[in-house]
This record gives sequence, C-alpha cells and structure tokens, in this order.
Amino acid sequence: MSDDLLGALSRLQDDRLSARDALAHNLEALRGEACRHAFVREFADSAQAVANAADAIAAAGAPRAPLGGLTISIKDLFDVAEQPTTAGSRALADAAPAAADCPAVARLRRAGAALIGHTNMTEFAFSGLGLNPHHGTPLNPVTRAIDGLARIPGGSSSGAAVSVAAGAAWAALGSDTGGSIRIPAALQGLVGFKNTTRLTPTEGTIPLSPALDTACAITRSVRDAVLLHEILAERRVRLTARPLRARRLAVVQPVFQDGMDATVASAFERSLAALRQAGAQIEEIPLAALATLQPYRVSSVAAEAWAWHRKLLAERGDAYDPRVARRIREGEAISGADLLDRIAARRAWIAAMESALQGFDAVLSPTVPVVAPLLQPLLDSDAAYYAANGLLLRNTSIVNALDGCAISLPCHAPGELPVGLMLWSTGGQDDTILDIALQVEAEVQKKAVH
Amino acid sequence: MSDDLLGALSRLQDDRLSARDALAHNLEALRGEACRHAFVREFADSAQAVANAADAIAAAGAPRAPLGGLTISIKDLFDVAEQPTTAGSRALADAAPAAADCPAVARLRRAGAALIGHTNMTEFAFSGLGLNPHHGTPLNPVTRAIDGLARIPGGSSSGAAVSVAAGAAWAALGSDTGGSIRIPAALQGLVGFKNTTRLTPTEGTIPLSPALDTACAITRSVRDAVLLHEILAERRVRLTARPLRARRLAVVQPVFQDGMDATVASAFERSLAALRQAGAQIEEIPLAALATLQPYRVSSVAAEAWAWHRKLLAERGDAYDPRVARRIREGEAISGADLLDRIAARRAWIAAMESALQGFDAVLSPTVPVVAPLLQPLLDSDAAYYAANGLLLRNTSIVNALDGCAISLPCHAPGELPVGLMLWSTGGQDDTILDIALQVEAEVQKKAVH
Repeated sequence: MSDDLLGALSRLQDDRLSARDALAHNLEALRGEACRHAFVREFADSAQAVANAADAIAAAGAPRAPLGGLTISIKDLFDVAEQPTTAGSRALADAAPAAADCPAVARLRRAGAALIGHTNMTEFAFSGLGLNPHHGTPLNPVTRAIDGLARIPGGSSSGAAVSVAAGAAWAALGSDTGGSIRIPAALQGLVGFKNTTRLTPTEGTIPLSPALDTACAITRSVRDAVLLHEILAERRVRLTARPLRARRLAVVQPVFQDGMDATVASAFERSLAALRQAGAQIEEIPLAALATLQPYRVSSVAAEAWAWHRKLLAERGDAYDPRVARRIREGEAISGADLLDRIAARRAWIAAMESALQGFDAVLSPTVPVVAPLLQPLLDSDAAYYAANGLLLRNTSIVNALDGCAISLPCHAPGELPVGLMLWSTGGQDDTILDIALQVEAEVQKKAVH
Repeated sequence: MSDDLLGALSRLQDDRLSARDALAHNLEALRGEACRHAFVREFADSAQAVANAADAIAAAGAPRAPLGGLTISIKDLFDVAEQPTTAGSRALADAAPAAADCPAVARLRRAGAALIGHTNMTEFAFSGLGLNPHHGTPLNPVTRAIDGLARIPGGSSSGAAVSVAAGAAWAALGSDTGGSIRIPAALQGLVGFKNTTRLTPTEGTIPLSPALDTACAITRSVRDAVLLHEILAERRVRLTARPLRARRLAVVQPVFQDGMDATVASAFERSLAALRQAGAQIEEIPLAALATLQPYRVSSVAAEAWAWHRKLLAERGDAYDPRVARRIREGEAISGADLLDRIAARRAWIAAMESALQGFDAVLSPTVPVVAPLLQPLLDSDAAYYAANGLLLRNTSIVNALDGCAISLPCHAPGELPVGLMLWSTGGQDDTILDIALQVEAEVQKKAVH
C-alpha cells in the first residue's frame, strides 16, 4: 500500500517530499484511467496555489499546517466557495456557485488541505452501490487490479473512495447516512470512520436525512482517520492504547453475518481468530433488540428526503436517476403520524440497544457481507439493483439508526478482493472505537500478511 | 382574596392552622356549588391521611415538609398511583388504575402535598375553553360571584383553576400546551406560570403534543408559583429583586392587542401605566418575525395528537367530544414531509424571535384579549366555539410555539371581571420572568386597589 497521509506528512517534515510534488502525483492519478468518473469537477488551480504556498511557508522555516498542503477530495455534497454543489445530479446542473465553504470544508482548508476537486457520488447520496447514470460510474480500481473485472466502487461516496484508492487524494471528505463512507471503504480496502452525528457539522451540505447525515472521511489508515476526525470535529481524540486483552468485544448473532460470501466469511473468521490470539475477549451475543425491531422500521430517511426533494422532483423529476427518484418518492406515503411513531420507536429502540450493549467496548461485524458486486448485472436489472443495495446497506445502516459510531478497516489477505471489518458502538463512544481500531488494524494486518 | 399557599404554610408554622382543618375547608369547598363539575374523582381518604400525618409530625416537633400536608389538585392527565387517568374523556372510562405516580405528582407528594382529587378538563386538553360534555362544564366561580352569569372557566385546565379559585386546593397541577394553564388562570383571576418545557417532567401523562406539553401549576400568587415551580422542576429559582426601573420591557405591536374588549384594554393600559410609574422602561416593538410567520403555521400539535389518538379514535371515536375529535382528525392530513417542514420552520422562527427579543427582559401582553365568554353561545354553535377557542389561545400559544416561558397574573380592579397580564420571554428565561412578575404583581395590585 502506498503511504498514508501521516506518512506523507512525515516525509514533508523531513523534506523528502514537497506538497507541490505530491500534488503532481495526485493530479496524474486524477487524470489516469483508475480515476475515470471519480470526479465531477477539479480544483487543480486552487490546489496548486495551496501546495505552493505550503512549500513556501516551509521553505521560510515556518511550521506547516496540520495537513501541510496535501490534497483532500470533497464529495459533491459539500459547499466549496465559488464552486457549484450538485450532489452528482443533473437536476442541479444550473446550481449557482456556493458563496462560502461549508463548515466541514472550512475546517479542512484551515488545517492546510489542498482541495483537489468535487468527487462523484450516488445521486443525492441515496444508494450504497455508487452507480451514477449522469456522470458515469467509477469502477472499483482495487478489485480491477486484482481480477480485471468491472466491479462497483460502493457508495454513495463512490468517487471519494476511488480518489483515495487511486492516489488522487490522501483522504476524502464524504458523508454517511446509511453507510456511504463505510461501504466504499470496505469494497476498496480503505478505512472509513463514521462518527456520532452531532460531533461534526453538516451545515452547507445537501441533506439526505438531517437526522442521520454525518460528515466524515475515507482514509488509508486508522491513524489518518483519527487525524481527519480531529480536524472535522475540532476536538482531540483521547487514545489510551489499552491492550486488546483488556477489551470486551461482541459478535452479534442475528443479521450481521447472514449471507456472507466465502471471501468475507473467511476474512471475518480469520480476523476474529487473530484478535482472540492477541488476547481479546470476544463474546457472541443474541442482541434481542435487533431481532425484534429491524432498524428500517424506525427509519425516517425517505420522509426526510421527500421533504427536501418534493419541490425539485416536481420541477426536474425527469433529470433524476429513476432508481433514486423511486426511493425518494417512497417518502411521500409516510404520514406525519407515521413519522412521529417512527421517531418514538427509534428512540425506544436506541435505548434497548444501548442497554443490551452496555459493558461491551465494541461490536465486530463484516462491514458488508459480500465483496464488491459486478457492475453490469446492477445496470441491467432494477431488481438486482435494489437487492444488492439492501444487502450492502444492511449492516452499516443499523449503526446509523442507532446514532452510533463505526469504523470499517480492511481485513482481507493480500491478493484477495477487499473485505471490511466493522467495529461499532453506541453514540458517543467514538474515541473508544478509534482506540481499539488502531490495535485491531495492527493485529489483523499482521495476520493477513502471514 | 383568601390566603395564598405560602400564607397558609406560615399559619401552619405558627400553629394558627392545622393541615386537618385546612383540608376540612377544602373538602367543604370541593362539595360546594362553586366546584360543581370541577373534579372527576376525589382522593379524600388519602388526603386525610396525609394531612393527619403532617399534623402528627409537627406535633412531634419535627419540621413540616415544604407543602406541609396542604392540598394540591391534579389535572386528570397525570398518573396518580392506584387511580385511573382519563383525560376528561369517556373513551378512557375503563382505564386501569396507574401503577405509580408520574414524576410530577411524585415530586408534589414527596414535598408533602395532600392530593385532593383529579380535576376536570377539556377532553384530552385540546381546547382553551374548558367545555366538557361528558362530565359537565365547571362554571367560572369568580365571574359568577361578580355578575351572576354562566361564563366559561377557560381551559384546558378548567377544573384545576376552579379548584383553586373556589378554595378546594391551594394550588393545582396542570399542563400547558397552547395556554391550558394561563387561560383559565387569566379568566379566574389566578396566577398561571408556564415554564420552558424541558424544565419539568411530562412522563406518565397523556400527551397532547410531546414537543409542547409542559407540566406546571395554577396558584393564587406569584410567590406560590415560584414555590410550585421549584418543586416540579426540582431546582431553585434565582431571584434578584432587581428593581423594575432596571428592566427593559417590551410591548409587541402586532397580534397581541388585537380585538381586546373594553375591560381587558383598560386593565392592560392601566397596568402599563402603573409599571411606567414604577420606573419600568417599556418599548413598543414591531417584532417582524411575528408578522411574517404565524405560529400556527409551524405547529405540529394536530399531527402529534393524531399519532397518539388514531388507534383510540378508531376504536372509541363515538365516545369523544365531536369538537375535540374534529381538531385531532386535522392531524391526519399532515404528511411526514409537511411535519418536517413545520419542525424546520419552527426552528428558524424561534431563532428569529430570539434574535428580535434579545436585550429585552420580558414582553407584556394581555394573556387573553377578552374576559371569560358566556357559556351558552359556545354550547349552541360550533362556529362560535372554534372562533372563541382561536381567540383565547392566540396569545398564549405563541409562547408555546417559541418554547418560551410565561406567567399570567391578575391585573383587573376589584369588582371587575378578571383580566390576565402575561409576562413572557424566550426559552430558559424562567427565573427572570418570575423575578419580574413578583414586582409587577405588587405594582399592578397596588394600582388596581387604588
């Protein structure tokens, strides 16, 4: 694997790398075949200016900013000053440029990021597959290098993950409402951390579900995930380095392991074995709250999406991806009373889940039960599209319904198609998840290599 | 006016009164003509036991509890252990007894209250008039003693106010979702304080609007309102006794003074003059936020009511007051997206109002623009009922939409029909409102007597 962001920052520090040279490599990658359809617009000039300025500051002996003038890509959902925000949609093709950076982008810029471009995505972020009929679907560059087949990137932050996997950016800003950070990270062998919603700002983004939308990042390592989260949340993560043998971890019996393919099943079992060998206690728990109430029963996403889109759908419905429009229109049938019932049921469900998970530091699950599906069957069949979408979102969206936090990190062996291991917990346990993930990453990768 | 609760407590302290004797007077009042239809059930035996025990404790030289064994009435919306809760409705006539006191009732009981009974109310608290076709409507005992006519008590906490005005209780626990504490307090010459919602617990009550429902009390004086709020909120109110001349007060031009009758208009003007004479600065402000967006446009009450009632209406709709049922059924047409729009619009409206009211310590308004209407025309005509209901709720419900705090205190001259003066502010300013109200009460009553 190429260097991670902190590795590059350390090379910048030692003058073994300049921001300018790093950007040149990023731009080459961005224009290469692996990044086809990954971006909807480039900010090459402003990125160049930031990289030059960062190098000039360093040359003058002043300290570099935390991100040192290195590139970050921005999902086309976040306002960037003087650029339109189009959410991967043709319906917003005429959008006026944003007057200002949204808070998440502003925090990255203040930390010294060179913003390299707006990345492609599932239109309006409303699917976990990453297909985009308007701009074209970026192919999964990682699986393609392994088996040569055209597989999906995962979504909705499809271009975000490709930009990192293909080397066009050191990290990618994205959003996660049902799994949109973690799914493409899992399918492309990257790290995706979805924090508790309230910790990062979503103002200045196009909403999917204001209740669940989370601003977060895709990175190449867990330590990079810590750094990006600290910048996006404007807070310090408390890391204890408590050993894994002092952690109480859970594997949940229902739902999460259903329908795993052979690659995911063996990578997941191998990971559990590696963690047990490292001394972690891992208990299988029934988690009855999951069995009795499926999170989709408490979801308000379609109603929230319909509330935002109904006007635009009336005016520009013909410009929408029909599959996305169909999912949004499901929200039309949700009455106010139904919505209130769902909100109350969700609150009760969260309380039951929190109570059942008390005493556990994290739950371990496959992020996605299958490796990246082939693209063509999903283009050909609506039924295949919706089935795959449901399967890919199934595990990750439980954590969103819980307003929890989760990280997906790679757990496959070299040469295998990427598989994500998800560590997750209830809301507010973000630092514990990151703390454990640092050690899990080391153990799982040690094992994967042998 | 008879003694207030703190007056009675001081007489208990000095052994000039016993809880037992006080209860005997309360029970006599409860069974008198003025209290007809004010209660839906009595708790005379348990009240007797509490009063006896309170006196025994005092006789043994131990300190009395804060409420000293004196009576408090409980609106038929709050769970009292071993009693059914029926919200003034026949549809809940078969309700099982509550297993436990709700938190608000438990706090009163722990403070030494003798609970004297469940008071009558507008069915399910969904009207400001106080009419109840199932149990009969309690007449306004205060206006009746003045002009002999059958006028409404105000609602929804109709029996609650009558229980205090007629001497069956020293204070009344009620709820305020759109004005249900303040309207009957205003129409009966009592004090009604509606705190910011989050400060008092509403668990164990039958909800009207979980977003707006507030547990609070009707009392005979502002100092009693402070005491009851401290018990219900389990916190101390911070009183500064800052003089009125150090306060910046506002009168809002639009809406609040529209349609005042002669009694209200002259009492309101007289009050402003008395406060100015006492040194208060009172500015007329336009409050454009009120003119541009009416609070009913951001109300979710009907949708919330429909969410709770739709099952019961399907089963027992024939048992509902048809006028209440009609208002609840309006919530059926509110879609999930409409509800989300209202919630978002309400949030924006609150922000605009808070910004416009910054720098003012309180706003002064008539609580209700008219004196208590006659009962018969409202019984006879649906149109008159809905028109009067809209007029009575108009001013008070603005404060609920704001999630603000407000107190209504009497400002009429002796011999006049009661008129309420409302002091209100934004959410969390409860202590300031109570602090100012103590002084306003003194100034206004001084003036009213002369």
